[in-house]
Amino acid sequence: MSQQRSITIHAPATVANMVCGFDVLGFAVNDPYDIMKIRFSDRPGVTIVNEDAYNLPLEPEKNVAGAALLALLEEAPDVKGLEITINKQIKPGSGVGSSAASAAGAVVAANILLGHPFSKPDLVRFAMNGEKVASGVKHADNIAPCIYGGVTLIRSIFPLDIIQLNAPPLFVTIVHPQIEVRTADARSILKQQILLKDAIKQWGNIAGLVAGLQQQDYELIGRSLEDVLIEPVRSILIPGFDQVKKRSRDAGALGGGISGSGPSIFMLSRDEATAKKVEQEMHSVYDAINLEHHTYVTTINSNGITITEQ
Amino acid sequence: MSQQRSITIHAPATVANMVCGFDVLGFAVNDPYDIMKIRFSDRPGVTIVNEDAYNLPLEPEKNVAGAALLALLEEAPDVKGLEITINKQIKPGSGVGSSAASAAGAVVAANILLGHPFSKPDLVRFAMNGEKVASGVKHADNIAPCIYGGVTLIRSIFPLDIIQLNAPPLFVTIVHPQIEVRTADARSILKQQILLKDAIKQWGNIAGLVAGLQQQDYELIGRSLEDVLIEPVRSILIPGFDQVKKRSRDAGALGGGISGSGPSIFMLSRDEATAKKVEQEMHSVYDAINLEHHTYVTTINSNGITITEQ
Repeated sequence: MSQQRSITIHAPATVANMVCGFDVLGFAVNDPYDIMKIRFSDRPGVTIVNEDAYNLPLEPEKNVAGAALLALLEEAPDVKGLEITINKQIKPGSGVGSSAASAAGAVVAANILLGHPFSKPDLVRFAMNGEKVASGVKHADNIAPCIYGGVTLIRSIFPLDIIQLNAPPLFVTIVHPQIEVRTADARSILKQQILLKDAIKQWGNIAGLVAGLQQQDYELIGRSLEDVLIEPVRSILIPGFDQVKKRSRDAGALGGGISGSGPSIFMLSRDEATAKKVEQEMHSVYDAINLEHHTYVTTINSNGITITEQ
Repeated sequence: MSQQRSITIHAPATVANMVCGFDVLGFAVNDPYDIMKIRFSDRPGVTIVNEDAYNLPLEPEKNVAGAALLALLEEAPDVKGLEITINKQIKPGSGVGSSAASAAGAVVAANILLGHPFSKPDLVRFAMNGEKVASGVKHADNIAPCIYGGVTLIRSIFPLDIIQLNAPPLFVTIVHPQIEVRTADARSILKQQILLKDAIKQWGNIAGLVAGLQQQDYELIGRSLEDVLIEPVRSILIPGFDQVKKRSRDAGALGGGISGSGPSIFMLSRDEATAKKVEQEMHSVYDAINLEHHTYVTTINSNGITITEQ
């Protein structure tokens, strides 16, 4: 393989939890995405080049993409060095899998460059090292959909068991209010003990959501997008949450909730016109309280990371 | 409609919970089943005739089938009286939905006799009054599969939301060790507070089970048949449980666990030969400890209650 060759990929944003699937469900979207280019380097280890304005760390151990690549290199002893150029479009801290896109994008690109020596579960395993740098915890609910595409279930993390779920076409509206919610904070406010009766509601809903996705039953998907455990606690950290949710549903959204640990909020709709109406409602909620925010109207990305140049 | 006409039905046994779906999943089996015959009666209200040896109460309010029929009659004011003849084949207290078969069978038969004035959700609602007589709680995880057939999800009970899940062909081996486990006791030993991390495992598994059933992925079904919350507590009440489970899996069963609140244990297999091997293992476990027991090798019943004579 040529030492000059480079691989460019798009690594999509992802929405973890999907309301009733805390820590186990996630899906990829078509917009936004990070652009990353990888090539062999004579410099040993991992070299990071930032092409964006986020000033993320250049030391590989402290960089999400770097830590994921270091884990991969441990199992690819013949490779001397890799240089990765990162053009981040997914704002760090927005709650739509920015760190997962960096970590997953880096190792997927490296795997292509190396001629596909690794399986998808291997790549998830490497990328989780990046998540550990970002949040202190190895979790896969953003990485799995980023790599596999579509809606994914992480039935178990040790041992890793990832299941791709079928899903009907869905439009996704995302709003990112410009406030900071640290993943660690969002995690620490959760109660470690919960009521069995609440857990039963939650697993009734996740079972309904999975059935609804597989059976392409939009109404069932909508009814199942209910979270009695996490959302009531975490939504307090997100100004305007209740209003965004209520007005989005009134505008025709099937349902939605906090993306990952927030602050972004996502809503699913059956068609693009509704998804755009939902976007207007989101603007209107945050304009009224003068909170800077970005919105995206997009669709579920069923391919995961895509190669754009090789 | 003729006042002489009678309707005879078979009401199947059911397995509630399905390991990781506590209180929300259940499925019907083809064997055993109760036989019930209903006709109009000049005697007002509900008249019960027992054709079996179980000596169940004849007062409608105290009888599971009677209580369900009384609830139906409240919404059918033109009907003077109904006489129901019950030939129970599903042993009360065995944990395979004996009370649900009585309650559901009675109201489904009555609905046919009356010319189908009621919907399936109506019938579930009436039948839950029978479950209340049996266990003190209105639950639908046996009634729903008994009426709908196949594997059912009760996403929510108030309001009632029942979803039929697709499932591949599955063989079911059931063993009923002759000990008494009262539903109320089996319920009272459960902890009302659980750990979030255990609940996450449980909803990962139920999501995996629903996906496995819908995608006809037997391996995934097997991996998902895991219960970290209820089984470790309740299985203590069932002698031989751990051995039955281990030896059934070793014999090729996909997995299984406690049927409802026990004492019956069910195991799922991909083919009949395996299901019969599993039956031999069950015999061998209970013969060794000299515990009287019954076994069934059957399949998932996809039709629910069936009319045999009208």
